[in-house]
Amino acid sequence: MKAEIISIGTELLLGHTINTDAAYIANALANLGIDLHHIQMVGDNPERLKAALRLALERSDVVITSGGLGPTKDDLSKECAAAVAGLDLEINSQVLEYLKEYFGKRSISQNQLKQALFPKGAVIFKNPHGTAPGCAIPLENGKFICLLPGPPRELVPMLENELLPFLRPFSTQIIKSSILRTFGIGEGLAAEKLDSLVDLENPTVATYAADGEMFVKISAKAESEKEADLLLSPLIRKVEKILGGYIYGREVQNLEEVVVTLLRNKNLTLATAESCTGGLLAKRITDQPGASEIFHLGVITYANKAKEKILGVKPQTLQNYGAVSPQTAAEMAISIKNLAHADFGIGITGIAGPDGGTVEKPLGLVYVALAANEIHIAKLIPQGRYLGRAWVRQRASSLALDLLRRLLTDLPLLTEL
Amino acid sequence: MKAEIISIGTELLLGHTINTDAAYIANALANLGIDLHHIQMVGDNPERLKAALRLALERSDVVITSGGLGPTKDDLSKECAAAVAGLDLEINSQVLEYLKEYFGKRSISQNQLKQALFPKGAVIFKNPHGTAPGCAIPLENGKFICLLPGPPRELVPMLENELLPFLRPFSTQIIKSSILRTFGIGEGLAAEKLDSLVDLENPTVATYAADGEMFVKISAKAESEKEADLLLSPLIRKVEKILGGYIYGREVQNLEEVVVTLLRNKNLTLATAESCTGGLLAKRITDQPGASEIFHLGVITYANKAKEKILGVKPQTLQNYGAVSPQTAAEMAISIKNLAHADFGIGITGIAGPDGGTVEKPLGLVYVALAANEIHIAKLIPQGRYLGRAWVRQRASSLALDLLRRLLTDLPLLTEL
Repeated sequence: MKAEIISIGTELLLGHTINTDAAYIANALANLGIDLHHIQMVGDNPERLKAALRLALERSDVVITSGGLGPTKDDLSKECAAAVAGLDLEINSQVLEYLKEYFGKRSISQNQLKQALFPKGAVIFKNPHGTAPGCAIPLENGKFICLLPGPPRELVPMLENELLPFLRPFSTQIIKSSILRTFGIGEGLAAEKLDSLVDLENPTVATYAADGEMFVKISAKAESEKEADLLLSPLIRKVEKILGGYIYGREVQNLEEVVVTLLRNKNLTLATAESCTGGLLAKRITDQPGASEIFHLGVITYANKAKEKILGVKPQTLQNYGAVSPQTAAEMAISIKNLAHADFGIGITGIAGPDGGTVEKPLGLVYVALAANEIHIAKLIPQGRYLGRAWVRQRASSLALDLLRRLLTDLPLLTEL
Repeated sequence: MKAEIISIGTELLLGHTINTDAAYIANALANLGIDLHHIQMVGDNPERLKAALRLALERSDVVITSGGLGPTKDDLSKECAAAVAGLDLEINSQVLEYLKEYFGKRSISQNQLKQALFPKGAVIFKNPHGTAPGCAIPLENGKFICLLPGPPRELVPMLENELLPFLRPFSTQIIKSSILRTFGIGEGLAAEKLDSLVDLENPTVATYAADGEMFVKISAKAESEKEADLLLSPLIRKVEKILGGYIYGREVQNLEEVVVTLLRNKNLTLATAESCTGGLLAKRITDQPGASEIFHLGVITYANKAKEKILGVKPQTLQNYGAVSPQTAAEMAISIKNLAHADFGIGITGIAGPDGGTVEKPLGLVYVALAANEIHIAKLIPQGRYLGRAWVRQRASSLALDLLRRLLTDLPLLTEL
């Protein structure tokens, strides 16, 4: 089965909205083993939308649209789909009931009523997160047009709960994927190490870079989940063996999730003292629900005076070695560990830029100290070009999390990156 | 002039990559007054790419592609464009020199050499951020194919420095826009207040919601920038009058930029004490370059013990009113202001969830205190559904920034949201 996506909305053509819907649908189709060769984006223009639908139906078996289902006069997806399908619109009594319930005692406006109109024979997709339901429209030639709403808050649950169960019977195979996330190794080197694995056809191995990290996606096409697992397992083990300790997790979202889980499972606590990352490390840790069990205190000592006063960093240390030094990072880490009575303390100090770099201490230089039973120091060194403040801060906070992850799992620590 | 975008890459069709490039190009074209009616996304498949190019050239005057310019065998944009244009590829001596310089003493591989091949007559777009230059290919019928690289780090500067100057002479009009950002007012209410302004045709007024905020974009089409300004100015003043203090800035990125700039200009400092936002407020402040002038100290007192020990919040306060209370927020704000010898102190305490809500203190309830000469308290109350941990944290940190913004600009404070 071949699918095609049409994303509808003038805001997409003006660049006001980034098309996350299409990526979400595309990913779901890939996991279902349904081929996707084309995505079109058009504005709220009925003629161009109808032309896009006709083109899509020529080359694909199922056309999935997002957007244009709301109550305003710009919302024309159903009208255009009905016209292309050669079907009339009629009030769907099930949807009408739902709208009456939704609006309660308030009367339903003519515009709102439009949302109960559907092409004859359409299968309704419920929308518990909005007033505009979606639908699948079966065509005479056995093809389908499926209409989804545009707002991701409405589209995502409708896709999961209605569209995918509707499409599943049409797919003869599934694709199952496993994602192994790494830190501390570049995509180039990883691809080199994985060597011939990246040329496999089924299962496949692909590398991706994002946010200063690299992840490996291993995917298998098969007729059943069990069969896919049989294809995946040996390859996952191979990749795990090749990339070893660089892999921080499989089927996880990010480093902070892994570190918070490790700490929770071991009943250990962490405290943070940040300078150049300015709270980003604490923010990433507390993004995790339940972080309060393992994280009680963090400080952002942005100024030297604050480092002295709150953390008791020695003025001589600051004077002799500077605020950006392994010595200062170490004193910060030890002090916050003690202040918080925590099992681990992290200290970060560096030059995030864009100003403040010198020949000796260039932009992007960061020291991270992890205080445990001993003190461990790691250094982030600018490689070639300075890649900006956000990049340095993200990478420095990741390096800190990775130090702790490696310590907690008995792996050698990365001391330079 | 009508443009069309073709985004190239199998990763787009698998949903691995969100197509930010297209939105970026679309926005730039809109600002240039060039119409964009279609965006296509296709994979790294030469036949489908050629068909997409042919379709685009039928209905548009300039086709802009992104992706497929690299050294690997999957990168086929130039080959396909040349085939559609009926042109041969030849080594471009200028690019060859650049590659030789780039690789220095290392020899250039056959794959890398591919990057010096261009269709005859192509205008080269330099790429100082990578090895693959882009180009504009003039066709016999007066149309153009413009090829850009896929990575945003390479695409954005090439678009700004090469493509836009190339396209500008073809546009007979420009679009100039002004963005007014607000906090504390919903899109529905704002649109209602703006009323008939949203029906204007030139200039236009449109509202957008993002990250718990709403912004208004006012755009004018004209033949010159001066003429556009004449259209924009009166409308900007009208919108400013209607939305008043809800507007925190025009042509600014976000609230933190406005607050940091206000503090810097007034030579004032801020210190933060966060609980449920867990460092997000400090992170947002220190995202701004130069934040060190106005921000010296922040603490994240996630546990009650930390609130007592570091901030001296009274155990009775915590016992009598609870950690999530205006009293605790106020003590946190006053204490951090004093500790840091800052002009302002902010205290935030609340229930970000997903666990921990009660009937009395539901998920999403947050108190923000701003200590200045007096103490100001604001409350974030969950409206209907709980929208998630990230939403609560974002909105609570924005409310805190907005309190300070309003105090610094002599506006009445929002005390409930």
